Amino acid sequence: MAIIISGKDYVSQHIDSLKTRCGEISKKKVPFMKVILVGANPASLSYVSHKKKLCEKVGAKFEIVEIHPEVEAQDFLKIVDEINKDAEVDGMIIQLPLPSQLKKLDIYNLVLPQKDIDGFHVQNLKDIYENKITESSLIPCTPKGVMKLLDFHKIELKGKDVVVVGRSHIVGKPIFHLMLNRNATVTICHSNTKNLPEICKRADIVVVAVGNSRFYNSSFSHKDQIIIDVGISRDQENKLCGDVDFKELEDCVQALTPVPGGVGPMTVFSLIENLIIATEKKYI
Amino acid sequence: MAIIISGKDYVSQHIDSLKTRCGEISKKKVPFMKVILVGANPASLSYVSHKKKLCEKVGAKFEIVEIHPEVEAQDFLKIVDEINKDAEVDGMIIQLPLPSQLKKLDIYNLVLPQKDIDGFHVQNLKDIYENKITESSLIPCTPKGVMKLLDFHKIELKGKDVVVVGRSHIVGKPIFHLMLNRNATVTICHSNTKNLPEICKRADIVVVAVGNSRFYNSSFSHKDQIIIDVGISRDQENKLCGDVDFKELEDCVQALTPVPGGVGPMTVFSLIENLIIATEKKYI
Repeated sequence: MAIIISGKDYVSQHIDSLKTRCGEISKKKVPFMKVILVGANPASLSYVSHKKKLCEKVGAKFEIVEIHPEVEAQDFLKIVDEINKDAEVDGMIIQLPLPSQLKKLDIYNLVLPQKDIDGFHVQNLKDIYENKITESSLIPCTPKGVMKLLDFHKIELKGKDVVVVGRSHIVGKPIFHLMLNRNATVTICHSNTKNLPEICKRADIVVVAVGNSRFYNSSFSHKDQIIIDVGISRDQENKLCGDVDFKELEDCVQALTPVPGGVGPMTVFSLIENLIIATEKKYI
Repeated sequence: MAIIISGKDYVSQHIDSLKTRCGEISKKKVPFMKVILVGANPASLSYVSHKKKLCEKVGAKFEIVEIHPEVEAQDFLKIVDEINKDAEVDGMIIQLPLPSQLKKLDIYNLVLPQKDIDGFHVQNLKDIYENKITESSLIPCTPKGVMKLLDFHKIELKGKDVVVVGRSHIVGKPIFHLMLNRNATVTICHSNTKNLPEICKRADIVVVAVGNSRFYNSSFSHKDQIIIDVGISRDQENKLCGDVDFKELEDCVQALTPVPGGVGPMTVFSLIENLIIATEKKYI
């Protein structure tokens, strides 16, 4: 029976200290995040509601700015710019995905670095790329959450063979750098990778971030492998599931994360932590 | 007998077109680069002289700013700042290595991005990190030169297993991203990697950038492997050599670069090209 690496458990054990930290900074300024939501993609609505819930649970302020899905790029930029300039707002995120007319924008670099609690801006990525992470670095939320989980479970990374499946700006690339900074030997795989099962099979730790329901099965793994499942999608019965075939693997790997209740809650937790960091940087 | 991937040949075949391009922009402004040289490290002096030579060959202006090796950080910053502000200067590089008192500086981000012809500034790395390279991107010189060599020899990267040995800011990390952008499956190895020979042995293409004379031998390679040797050091007889045991491998791999005459000339060529690009961006 594999160890279940639960993000839900992590959050329930750490939420109080986040709340305390939020209370401390709130003596000077209550952290306030705004989420720009273009249209009403059902997955986005669900993510946003999780963020709102945790935000309010720790005592931070949360507001959604709803925008019409056919908004023109220049009007969209005006809204982002106004929030960038609003001194009341400490953190801003642009909820992805965006409609096609906005995809040509330099989307990851629109939010001011100091308000970029998603950690997508190049000025924030610099810290992980250059291996100069400090307490006040704004690290992308899912990768940050993955590292927290690994650390919490005392999983050593130095010298380990790590495979990251997926090379997105949001997950794959930052995880690659975070793992490299911890002295793992890291391979990044993607849609053009040949022999993916073979490459994964020789890894000590695999981070799967593809979005392809339960494709990762025993042909990719071995009994000592640790698997972090970042994927989230719905199966044919509309049930939430990850990239990993949890049922098949839970008895034949060393450890793995469930979906839901694995990486998802860690992403939200890290986002709220980033909001608090952004506020602290401004007011302490 | 392996194919010898010669940088020297590449440069001799492409120098005229670089010269023509330099001539074109010179009608508006003669490209002018300044090199900040702190102290007189013999390797640095040799690199700088290669840069000067090629610069003058294509018709660009070159100037060395020599600085005392015990310069204080604030005085050093003042000099960099003056050159940043000097409208006559189109490109600036800070020759590495630097003495210890300057190592705490954010050295890769001191030169203005538009003059950063080394391509080390985060604003320039953004293009390769985000896979948004254009004709006017300032890409780090050695990685850029490596890609030119591979392209010149029509070496396909898509779906190939590439191993990069070394994770420096100057070579390893940018090469990783450039290879990933070309849809290779990329692994980055370093001093903490276990089983390095085994990992290299399964790669289609290996880029070795360590600086350890001739350590890379047949125990790392196979007959279909392509090897790019970025290392440069001197052996016990004070002879220039790379990381690769060229003599041992030239008969038993598919292709490899020599040292000297391999990647070295490509780095200098790419630097001068970056100088021209920086000038074109300003004046066209």
